[in-house]
Amino acid sequence: MVDSRLDQFIRRIKAQRACLNMAAGLISGMSGPILELGLGNGRTYDHLRELFPARDIYVFERDVAAHPDCIPDETHLLHGDFKETVPGALARIGAPAALIHGDIGSADSARDAELAAWLGPALRSLAAPGAVILSDRAIGDAVWPPEPLPRDVAPGVYFMYRAVALH
Amino acid sequence: MVDSRLDQFIRRIKAQRACLNMAAGLISGMSGPILELGLGNGRTYDHLRELFPARDIYVFERDVAAHPDCIPDETHLLHGDFKETVPGALARIGAPAALIHGDIGSADSARDAELAAWLGPALRSLAAPGAVILSDRAIGDAVWPPEPLPRDVAPGVYFMYRAVALH
Repeated sequence: MVDSRLDQFIRRIKAQRACLNMAAGLISGMSGPILELGLGNGRTYDHLRELFPARDIYVFERDVAAHPDCIPDETHLLHGDFKETVPGALARIGAPAALIHGDIGSADSARDAELAAWLGPALRSLAAPGAVILSDRAIGDAVWPPEPLPRDVAPGVYFMYRAVALH
Repeated sequence: MVDSRLDQFIRRIKAQRACLNMAAGLISGMSGPILELGLGNGRTYDHLRELFPARDIYVFERDVAAHPDCIPDETHLLHGDFKETVPGALARIGAPAALIHGDIGSADSARDAELAAWLGPALRSLAAPGAVILSDRAIGDAVWPPEPLPRDVAPGVYFMYRAVALH
């Protein structure tokens, strides 16, 4: 049975798209900007622009190396390490987010686990009640309840949470 | 209708996999190594290793930046610009190839068109009779007849050719 890195990647990127498309429905009744952690080559940012043409989309990225058409303007780019840019982000983005997406996985699983454990609590105050939090790593297990995944996404391929009111 | 860069990318990478898997069947009765033009992050190379465990796989790459597990040994890595490494490659690979795959597309369509026009003729002598040539760009239009694509691949998303005997 072939299960190459190509197979794994296709599974993960299809899961990402399915989760984002589902999230668009889940947050359609609420306001708030979109937060994208990691710009990469800008493909997912472009998908977010298409899904959410009327919302502000803020991107957190240390090393901007995306396709020139897929780079946000300076107002919407939080440039630097997540640990520098996330903690004070609420003042910058103006309102808690309706959707937070973090495609943070790398080849370094120890680094990923450490970042995932840090990110969830750090993002808590940036998520509006009812917000969807999505990631390729389990960033929210200690923070938010899980949201059921799209039917064609296997558990563990992508992670989806729903922020609830704190009181 | 949403058709983002993410949608386009998923379409192309699924087409790539479908074409590679079909090519594995088409060349199962012939000998010859595999040539991979461009290593990238090594995902496709990993897929080729899974599909063709018994064949030599030679990779042409200028800037090796793949996952450490997905980098060929020095014998199988032709390091440099395609225009330097492709023309003399037959001596290095020892026998004409059964499959040539070139994932060469970039954000620079003029550069891609120029490279595609150069590559087909440059690869002609590296393809064994019956070899499959696959690419995300139309590298072989002037050199080889087209091979029918897998059913779920739309024309123009991926390009597949079949080398025929020259006499």
